[in-house]
Amino acid sequence: MILLARLTIHPLGLRIEVHKGETILEAIGRSGVKLPSICGGKGLCGKCVIRVLKGDVSSPSRQELKLLGEKIRMGFRLACQTKILGDVEVEIPRESLKRVPRIVVEGLEAAVTFNPMVREVYVHVDKPGLTDLRADYRRLLDALKASIDVEAASRPNLRVIRKLPAVFRTSGWSIRVVYHTKLGILDVNPIDKEVGLYGLAVDIGTTKLAIYLVDLRTGKTETAKSMLNPQVRYGEDVISRISYASNPERTTVLQRAVIEGLNNLIEEACEYTEVDPQEIYEIVAVGNTVMHHILLGITPKTLGLAPFAPVVQDSIDLPASELGLRVNESANLHFLPVVAGFVGADAIADVIATRVYESKKPSMVIDVGTNTEIILNDGENLYACSCASGPAFEGARIRHGMRAAEGAIESIRIDSDGISYKVVGDVKPIGICGSGVVDAVSELLRVGVLSLDGRFRVSKMPSRFVKGSLGYEFVLAKPEETGVGEAITITQRDIREIQLAKSAIATGISLLMKEAGVELEELSAIYLAGSFGSYINPRSAVRIGLLPNVSLDKIKSVGNSAGAGAKMCLISQEERARARILAQRIRFVEFYLKPEFKKVFLENLNFPKAEELF
Amino acid sequence: MILLARLTIHPLGLRIEVHKGETILEAIGRSGVKLPSICGGKGLCGKCVIRVLKGDVSSPSRQELKLLGEKIRMGFRLACQTKILGDVEVEIPRESLKRVPRIVVEGLEAAVTFNPMVREVYVHVDKPGLTDLRADYRRLLDALKASIDVEAASRPNLRVIRKLPAVFRTSGWSIRVVYHTKLGILDVNPIDKEVGLYGLAVDIGTTKLAIYLVDLRTGKTETAKSMLNPQVRYGEDVISRISYASNPERTTVLQRAVIEGLNNLIEEACEYTEVDPQEIYEIVAVGNTVMHHILLGITPKTLGLAPFAPVVQDSIDLPASELGLRVNESANLHFLPVVAGFVGADAIADVIATRVYESKKPSMVIDVGTNTEIILNDGENLYACSCASGPAFEGARIRHGMRAAEGAIESIRIDSDGISYKVVGDVKPIGICGSGVVDAVSELLRVGVLSLDGRFRVSKMPSRFVKGSLGYEFVLAKPEETGVGEAITITQRDIREIQLAKSAIATGISLLMKEAGVELEELSAIYLAGSFGSYINPRSAVRIGLLPNVSLDKIKSVGNSAGAGAKMCLISQEERARARILAQRIRFVEFYLKPEFKKVFLENLNFPKAEELF
Repeated sequence: MILLARLTIHPLGLRIEVHKGETILEAIGRSGVKLPSICGGKGLCGKCVIRVLKGDVSSPSRQELKLLGEKIRMGFRLACQTKILGDVEVEIPRESLKRVPRIVVEGLEAAVTFNPMVREVYVHVDKPGLTDLRADYRRLLDALKASIDVEAASRPNLRVIRKLPAVFRTSGWSIRVVYHTKLGILDVNPIDKEVGLYGLAVDIGTTKLAIYLVDLRTGKTETAKSMLNPQVRYGEDVISRISYASNPERTTVLQRAVIEGLNNLIEEACEYTEVDPQEIYEIVAVGNTVMHHILLGITPKTLGLAPFAPVVQDSIDLPASELGLRVNESANLHFLPVVAGFVGADAIADVIATRVYESKKPSMVIDVGTNTEIILNDGENLYACSCASGPAFEGARIRHGMRAAEGAIESIRIDSDGISYKVVGDVKPIGICGSGVVDAVSELLRVGVLSLDGRFRVSKMPSRFVKGSLGYEFVLAKPEETGVGEAITITQRDIREIQLAKSAIATGISLLMKEAGVELEELSAIYLAGSFGSYINPRSAVRIGLLPNVSLDKIKSVGNSAGAGAKMCLISQEERARARILAQRIRFVEFYLKPEFKKVFLENLNFPKAEELF
Repeated sequence: MILLARLTIHPLGLRIEVHKGETILEAIGRSGVKLPSICGGKGLCGKCVIRVLKGDVSSPSRQELKLLGEKIRMGFRLACQTKILGDVEVEIPRESLKRVPRIVVEGLEAAVTFNPMVREVYVHVDKPGLTDLRADYRRLLDALKASIDVEAASRPNLRVIRKLPAVFRTSGWSIRVVYHTKLGILDVNPIDKEVGLYGLAVDIGTTKLAIYLVDLRTGKTETAKSMLNPQVRYGEDVISRISYASNPERTTVLQRAVIEGLNNLIEEACEYTEVDPQEIYEIVAVGNTVMHHILLGITPKTLGLAPFAPVVQDSIDLPASELGLRVNESANLHFLPVVAGFVGADAIADVIATRVYESKKPSMVIDVGTNTEIILNDGENLYACSCASGPAFEGARIRHGMRAAEGAIESIRIDSDGISYKVVGDVKPIGICGSGVVDAVSELLRVGVLSLDGRFRVSKMPSRFVKGSLGYEFVLAKPEETGVGEAITITQRDIREIQLAKSAIATGISLLMKEAGVELEELSAIYLAGSFGSYINPRSAVRIGLLPNVSLDKIKSVGNSAGAGAKMCLISQEERARARILAQRIRFVEFYLKPEFKKVFLENLNFPKAEELF
């Protein structure tokens, strides 16, 4: 008898059925994902390194102890030596991974006044003499005051003071000052030393981290890097992170994980651009409220209990070094304000980047994720709500779901004579991502294989159905077409997951519009933020009732607008001030505890009638 | 043949001649200082622990390795096992020392408005609910604003924010806030938890450290503790400290030494008063400019080179934890401003404590030390200068000199029929301290044994002279009277040292008075600050020309006024503001580089004629 288990492969988000007792290399091989291996699975080449995040596996072999040493304690293993003993989650190191998830890092950026908090000022001072015994630091302040407005500089930075005497005396008393409008002098360097001036915009998502390295002299983004949020191993969504972080030590575990991830990205970005991390003086961070609290080492506990009040909501400045971020020791980290327990700084950044706040006609931003935030402008006031949409649109909890990486079915068309689909990277499919799932459901509805209440009508297309352990499955790709050797299907349970997810979002949209008194026909624009929003087919999204029934030209993908908004606040003091004002203007609406919510949610579980659409 | 070496015994400052090859226990025993020892020098009882600061000694014995272990690496040794191989400096641990130096920690304190920077505020907030979703921290700020003026509180303290949710939820939403006028909220605690509110005044002297633990609810000094500045092992005076701190690593060595010393004092003070170091929220520190720079980790190099400009002169606030001081992690350290490279924050504190600044008649403060600071008020303006008086008045560079500890001759009278003297602790003398030396010189002048140019007139009292290797020595105490088995004498070289020291100070006084246009008869008061100033006989000081020839009732000892001034600035915001204004008002006068200085200094080497005095 073959005992089955589940293997989850990060960062692809691919979940496959495996046999207990087989090695991780064998199992991953069957999934269609290629791991490097030269020695043929003998534990000699050391190429098939993976990291076990969770679950039961065999003890390390002698070869592993020899090749990996201390790294074994951090979960690193050789896939060819490690046998699966139960449900397991592994991570493929980025360097071994050919199929990198297609994470959208670019976002729509509106034009801003270029005016970063940090700038460079050249200063020349007279050297001390018998008639001028001023201290070095006062000498610097006096000279600085002569060229710029330096009220704030009265807060002295000891690192600068310690460095100052040598810098003055080796540079002929002419120096470059890195000056922060709010914090004063951050650094001093001799005038002839070429030192860059960089900033980071950081977007901390529940699933992914993205950083943007920006030249603060020009506003140009030098590079963008992203990776899976290392916290994923402690839980997929914010609720499971909150429950993991049940005490201060565990909050620290999550905090260290995200900081380690950010440090890796910083190192990668700096290597790529040949920028010295010491040249990074300012960081603007965004993220949902749970990510915000955890990064700052604040318990997210209160976010898991009604009424879900955050511990701190206003924007916060702190030394980046206090968190252990490896940038200049005097660098400042500014976390944008959050609106509420489930509407975070990322939503503020979405609002900034889309300029949704300035429209005189009703419009809204929807950032679809495990948690979906909706911000509505009724033409005058701003409203926000949050929907627990779950990870279905990111490919999780879907039988063959995966993130939008190479091998994922991203779009589908069903005709009477067959099914055609498009696969990321134009290879044989190994799974299906969010946009593919939405397309599939939409198509199944269109051809009548799915009823409006979400049940399969097997008789409409019997040849495409197979019966699995949990009932009928609709075959999207036959075993011979795929890279996994088995069919890629949509199960009845997948349909249910999609119904729950789309209803959560549709309910949020309709209740928020009702709260603001906005009618459907008044809506002038819907901005779709985030990776999912970038690839989704708007027609399919409307067909399944995920988005309201507006003319399709009103639906606009804006990419990673959270990252874009963070970058705008990095290079513009004006945008940063705007974020502060917006956080106070946005009216957060809490639906979950209202009786009305349940009723509307249940209604929205059904798919809309075709005649009501387009 | 017996080879001789010199043994310096800290914290007594006693220097004795010893035989190479003898043990430290034997040598110290002969000096009159008692070290505990039960086993009779066999290395068994482990009682005679000392610490070797400098010099050549024998390698650790097996008994030492067994009894002291790791501590050997820090210089700890058993005195009975350690042989002297060259000039050596040792420190006797405070707990083994019967003769503790008599360090003046009390100082004259003027009355101040009691208004510390840190205070406690009780706050009650409404708990969050569906209609009130404010974050915990905003809730706190709103409630705080209702009771006090909290502009500054906008700078959030992450430690407070991290602690806040639990404190709110375990205290029924009623809490105690520790609030700092300048920095905002430093701490939060449940209302029913008894937490003290303490501050420290810290006086960092070149030779000694003193701390004062003050209850910030009452202004009462709970205890004062002092010790030798552990930096002494790297050099006795500020010049040798500057030259030791020739690179950043060595500056750090000195910085760590003083911080370790302060942490020991804090621990001692807290144990004595049963105060938790976590209850210390504010520190005010004073010290000369070299001590100031080193504590803050700033190179003192510029202070050793003309024109001796400091790196920073204004008052500075920083987190005490940044220096590694073991008090509350949010505690603030405020270092009072310095005036110039050789007129430090201790001089400002002297001015504050003596109120010399408010006199309408000319008056001055003199803080005698290795470096002597003089501040003169001409009735309107304040002038300051500094004199390199050297350590002679602290007993160093004097043949039998020692600090004012038990066994030190502290006053002397010479009559035709003999010599009478007073010894600290009423025991047999083992040396002579600063006030004793001044008395001795004054008496020798009075009876005509010393000429005005500082030469012995042996024929005037031949029976009291002996001839040593460096010429004649005047015997103050005969061998049979002393606790060391040899005579305590004043040498011709000692007289020269005193001439140099007193001339430095007298020259500073006269040039400063000239600068301000103040005549001798106008002087209404001379405040003598510091330990030396407390014990000196004013008549003798005037006789030898150390102090100007004013009526003796105008000379006032004010004790450790630097410490007293620091304490005043700890408990009063008004005094702290005054320190800032005084630092700007005081006009520093630099004499050393003026040709005039040398001329006046040479004139002042002579002792004044008796008829010019009293």
